[in-house]
Amino acid sequence: MPDRVLRAISYPTIDHRGPEFQELAHTVLARVKTVVKTEQPVVIYPASGTGAWEAALVNTLSPGDRVLMAETGHFASLWREMAERLGLAVEVMPGEWGHGADPGAIGARLAEDKAKEIKAVCIVHNETSTGVTSRMAEIRKAIDGAGHPALFMADTISSLASIDYRQDEWGVDVTVAGSQKGLMLPPGLSFNGVSEKALAASKAARLPKSFWGWEPMLEANRNGMFPYTPATNLLFGLREALVMLLDEEGLDNVFARHDRHAEATRQAVNAWGLEVLCADPREYSSSLTAVKMPAGHDADALRRLILERFDMSLGNGLGKLAGTVFRIGHLGSFNDVTLAGTLSGVEMGLRLAGVPISASGVEAALKSMASAAQPAKAAAE
Amino acid sequence: MPDRVLRAISYPTIDHRGPEFQELAHTVLARVKTVVKTEQPVVIYPASGTGAWEAALVNTLSPGDRVLMAETGHFASLWREMAERLGLAVEVMPGEWGHGADPGAIGARLAEDKAKEIKAVCIVHNETSTGVTSRMAEIRKAIDGAGHPALFMADTISSLASIDYRQDEWGVDVTVAGSQKGLMLPPGLSFNGVSEKALAASKAARLPKSFWGWEPMLEANRNGMFPYTPATNLLFGLREALVMLLDEEGLDNVFARHDRHAEATRQAVNAWGLEVLCADPREYSSSLTAVKMPAGHDADALRRLILERFDMSLGNGLGKLAGTVFRIGHLGSFNDVTLAGTLSGVEMGLRLAGVPISASGVEAALKSMASAAQPAKAAAE
Amino acid sequence: MPDRVLRAISYPTIDHRGPEFQELAHTVLARVKTVVKTEQPVVIYPASGTGAWEAALVNTLSPGDRVLMAETGHFASLWREMAERLGLAVEVMPGEWGHGADPGAIGARLAEDKAKEIKAVCIVHNETSTGVTSRMAEIRKAIDGAGHPALFMADTISSLASIDYRQDEWGVDVTVAGSQKGLMLPPGLSFNGVSEKALAASKAARLPKSFWGWEPMLEANRNGMFPYTPATNLLFGLREALVMLLDEEGLDNVFARHDRHAEATRQAVNAWGLEVLCADPREYSSSLTAVKMPAGHDADALRRLILERFDMSLGNGLGKLAGTVFRIGHLGSFNDVTLAGTLSGVEMGLRLAGVPISASGVEAALKSMASAAQPAKAAAE
Amino acid sequence: MPDRVLRAISYPTIDHRGPEFQELAHTVLARVKTVVKTEQPVVIYPASGTGAWEAALVNTLSPGDRVLMAETGHFASLWREMAERLGLAVEVMPGEWGHGADPGAIGARLAEDKAKEIKAVCIVHNETSTGVTSRMAEIRKAIDGAGHPALFMADTISSLASIDYRQDEWGVDVTVAGSQKGLMLPPGLSFNGVSEKALAASKAARLPKSFWGWEPMLEANRNGMFPYTPATNLLFGLREALVMLLDEEGLDNVFARHDRHAEATRQAVNAWGLEVLCADPREYSSSLTAVKMPAGHDADALRRLILERFDMSLGNGLGKLAGTVFRIGHLGSFNDVTLAGTLSGVEMGLRLAGVPISASGVEAALKSMASAAQPAKAAAE
Repeated sequence: MPDRVLRAISYPTIDHRGPEFQELAHTVLARVKTVVKTEQPVVIYPASGTGAWEAALVNTLSPGDRVLMAETGHFASLWREMAERLGLAVEVMPGEWGHGADPGAIGARLAEDKAKEIKAVCIVHNETSTGVTSRMAEIRKAIDGAGHPALFMADTISSLASIDYRQDEWGVDVTVAGSQKGLMLPPGLSFNGVSEKALAASKAARLPKSFWGWEPMLEANRNGMFPYTPATNLLFGLREALVMLLDEEGLDNVFARHDRHAEATRQAVNAWGLEVLCADPREYSSSLTAVKMPAGHDADALRRLILERFDMSLGNGLGKLAGTVFRIGHLGSFNDVTLAGTLSGVEMGLRLAGVPISASGVEAALKSMASAAQPAKAAAE
Repeated sequence: MPDRVLRAISYPTIDHRGPEFQELAHTVLARVKTVVKTEQPVVIYPASGTGAWEAALVNTLSPGDRVLMAETGHFASLWREMAERLGLAVEVMPGEWGHGADPGAIGARLAEDKAKEIKAVCIVHNETSTGVTSRMAEIRKAIDGAGHPALFMADTISSLASIDYRQDEWGVDVTVAGSQKGLMLPPGLSFNGVSEKALAASKAARLPKSFWGWEPMLEANRNGMFPYTPATNLLFGLREALVMLLDEEGLDNVFARHDRHAEATRQAVNAWGLEVLCADPREYSSSLTAVKMPAGHDADALRRLILERFDMSLGNGLGKLAGTVFRIGHLGSFNDVTLAGTLSGVEMGLRLAGVPISASGVEAALKSMASAAQPAKAAAE
Repeated sequence: MPDRVLRAISYPTIDHRGPEFQELAHTVLARVKTVVKTEQPVVIYPASGTGAWEAALVNTLSPGDRVLMAETGHFASLWREMAERLGLAVEVMPGEWGHGADPGAIGARLAEDKAKEIKAVCIVHNETSTGVTSRMAEIRKAIDGAGHPALFMADTISSLASIDYRQDEWGVDVTVAGSQKGLMLPPGLSFNGVSEKALAASKAARLPKSFWGWEPMLEANRNGMFPYTPATNLLFGLREALVMLLDEEGLDNVFARHDRHAEATRQAVNAWGLEVLCADPREYSSSLTAVKMPAGHDADALRRLILERFDMSLGNGLGKLAGTVFRIGHLGSFNDVTLAGTLSGVEMGLRLAGVPISASGVEAALKSMASAAQPAKAAAE
Repeated sequence: MPDRVLRAISYPTIDHRGPEFQELAHTVLARVKTVVKTEQPVVIYPASGTGAWEAALVNTLSPGDRVLMAETGHFASLWREMAERLGLAVEVMPGEWGHGADPGAIGARLAEDKAKEIKAVCIVHNETSTGVTSRMAEIRKAIDGAGHPALFMADTISSLASIDYRQDEWGVDVTVAGSQKGLMLPPGLSFNGVSEKALAASKAARLPKSFWGWEPMLEANRNGMFPYTPATNLLFGLREALVMLLDEEGLDNVFARHDRHAEATRQAVNAWGLEVLCADPREYSSSLTAVKMPAGHDADALRRLILERFDMSLGNGLGKLAGTVFRIGHLGSFNDVTLAGTLSGVEMGLRLAGVPISASGVEAALKSMASAAQPAKAAAE
């Protein structure tokens, strides 16, 4: 998290009904669209990311509606559970954790759905629990290929502003996003990018909604206002983060940096003789890498050791991966040296935990990064 | 907003699944109960206050349930609209803005409700739009007097930690609170204090809920965890604010300070020859004072003038009070000198706007504060 | 002190030998000249203001050199003591505290000095202990009128960026300044504006000097460097403060604001029936006002009471004024409402201390400020 | 630089003549003695480290006094130049950069000085330009062995709070220190630890002094005051840093951490096939390591490449080492992972610059750190 963003959120809160706030709101509401790559409105909630999942569902669907979800990992499961709690009929495309959503299977299932009972296809773009990025453009094609009218919803909580994502080009109807990953903010803001089709669907949707309702939000936003108290200080931080992402580094350079770090991390994992959980190179995540723990070793013991000894926090295995994987995040405000430090912490931890490693992963990562192309200069420079 | 709190929220976010976070969570979850004056659990949402209104309703009620609300002002109206949008049958006790909820009328209405169709009585403790504090203890007595089992819910968004509030003693079943007033934080956290009776009601309640669901929250909270990403940085700030309120100044001194400032503000209003909106001295709010604009003068013009000339933001007339009142807030991290500055800004504004004033309100306020009793030393000193 | 400046100084220190630092140094070295109103170089020391006094003397003078100083108050006395400790022969123009340096007397003394033994005339522009601003332009004329070659040195520690000051126009040879008053920074930086004549004098000056030496400073500054470690974080703050002063508010508006606040303060003092120490209206200070305590009352007891009861710190009587005056500062990041709050704290304190006051000074101040002309918009807007 | 310290320095400046400041001053003045390991007073200047060099000399010496200095590197040379500019007669013990001061030679020279003309022996404890730590305890013994009364002065600017240093045990008469290295603060504070013997010497010393004078400082300090404006905000930071060093980590753990990082850095340098400048293992610096650039390669080109590509700033070769060494700092708030990141930046830089390296230095460093003993828990835990 960049110092500049942290300083920005620590300014005294301003009156959210005054002109200074309106200017702030207009700025961030307009600029966040560039990050989502959409011409459509983006709603900003004063709530963490899970809220934006709920918002996507309650705005567009009615009790008992059928939604298609893909079994890709822990967060996909949580979203499914939420949909069920809200009274939706969830149909899960089975899948192995370590793979993304299968465009072919989705297309086939939709083609079967002659009655168009499926109202929405909900996919986690980047599955944080497995380090797998689903192929959204191909899923879009599969939906189109089946000629199916279902809404297409994407959870981009751990991909937005780290991995290329294109709401309009990919025909996504609702983008779900959060503040605390690629946007480099503390948690507490979440987002819905809303297509015209989704907005139309919301007129007929009958799930009860008030806090999450798009309509009063969009109406108030037109005047730089919110229908209820916004998280003003995080909006200060968002404004600053957008300057860094859009004006200074440039989105394409941001994506290239994450790609470079992900590649270096995989080189490290390979050199150690360990295995990346993500099975399909087309689906490697550029924001985090999940690593399988060798048999006979406990991933959580390793994580504890690294936290205590090196004050460094690795992601744990979530859900059914508990104890068997650990996750290396490489997203947000992160440079080559920071990644090298992170991988060094892992390598020292592996040694101390007695996990056999075949070679220095850090050395491999350094070679990978040193040979990578220089980032182009940002647009603004 | 105190500098210490702002600095606290600007620290780098920590892993919300790690031991350091657990300690933070245990601390704030335990200490916030002291502020709510309850032995029961208090749920903390990573969302602004309006979310806690929604949480109170969706956790305890079922579609079509009848709830009794009192027409006390703009925020009471907004809560009512929310309840209607969520599919509840709202019955409104009529009332004049400038008065609190009428305990007698509530008792009478409940006594009539032989079928016990009313499931909840929802009252705004301190109505921010009018500067009126409803008499919660008397309302509790009225409910008991009618022998009615309805849940009692209180919105304390603009009273908690400014005006004495006692969940357990007053038998409130759900307390709704937010971070941005008496707790001296930026907006982005909200709270539900949950009685045993409310928790029992939530087992049978059938409004759909997921993000707002108490059960997974309470279960995760037991281990210092959250079921989804919490607003970690605001929790840093909350920890600091609780030290200031509970350990340093002491809650009783905090309340006495707000009482003193409210009294001084009313003295100023009287000296100016203007009128306080709150009609009943038993219901004067200690956190803000709404002032009626004399006929022929526009409150919003006055507010704009004061903002432009003195960089000071007054509250506007909300809902049907638009243009006819302005509101002076005197809550949070505020001392006698700050209040004097605020009243001075108003007095200069009134002069510049050509509003006739009969005498210096600031002088009256200074006399009032200078003659007030010294605050007792805080417990911790 | 503005939040923006405080945030700016809290960024991680950068390498003071790297290119990012050089850019910072070039910027602040160039822009601070605009504040001093000089085309000549301004040296920035990583030391508080007293250091810049020493620098002015040791760079230009030799042991035993005669310097002319004026008895205008406590800080003038301290500067004199410093000069004596450094081995200079100080000649003091006697004066009453409450008056500025007397241009006529200075001119007469210089005219008498046929041997040109006096090497420097050292004047405190704004005497913080008395709230008196000496008439520098007239002193310049008096020096010129006497045809005397003495260097003219000015201490602007409590005037620069609050009260109009013009190094080049007034022919000041060394300007002494500090960071913690009009520049709105914490203490820790100090400045020497250096005329060509002063620089020439420094070649022959024989007081030992190393840390304070201008020559290595000016040489390093040409490349955006310093000859030893600079106070980098305060330079971050200086850059921000210069944006506020020069680009946003505009220096002339800054001066007008201080004039308005000084006038309102004097109106308050008069209304209370108290007396301003400064005896000559041509010499009223716009950055602070010293007030005489009525006989039978102790200024320090009043100050303690106000600090304890209102958490507000007034200036004490310094040197021979101890206990008999208190000082109200009105400089830096201060607006009408802040001044009103300050005067309110004094008024409540006077009442509580039992000091008889004839009328509300705050009311008088509010009338004065409300009737003052609107500031013109800043150049940058 | 720790976030906590940066936040601490960004609080609004308090009145340095008030009781809150006095408490702050008493605390830091008392606690900094523990770091210097002395029972004698430590003076704190609102000036960067070079000022404390000047203070040590002007307080204790008279014009023309003979001082013995050792040619150990760039900073020793700068101190010598300062002494010369101040009018002292400096005698330099010749030495090769890469070696510390030679205790035997110093003893021999003092033994020769029958007339006791040498008034002070001035040694840089840790020479930042070469990464060499002089053996102060042995130098003390050499002075004592020669039965010589000269004052012993030590520059600990880059050693204090990183490398064990003991003013009283080693009989150092004046300790010179700064804020910006081991104390983890921005530059802007400097220190003189003053022995009784030094204080006695100051009574007779005739170099002119005012700003740097110990006497008024020590007198004011007794009441928690300063004779002129202190750098209050840096004192806020100092208080916080002292909590971290003394209460939380514990000084011995701090030293052990620096030793571990220095050892790992040398292992890296050896693995790369490069050479550490420090020639004598007894004199290895634990706060930084200077590395010789292989013939045919330019250290500054390497540094520029690393700064541009990895945003990481290495120390340059100073004085006669320009272009032929680069310096790796490993002091202050630094952990194993940060060091690994730093060494990784160097290793990638070496590769990119085409400097041949024989093996991965980072791998060697990781092995070294992973096999190092766990730090004992701090006293306070």
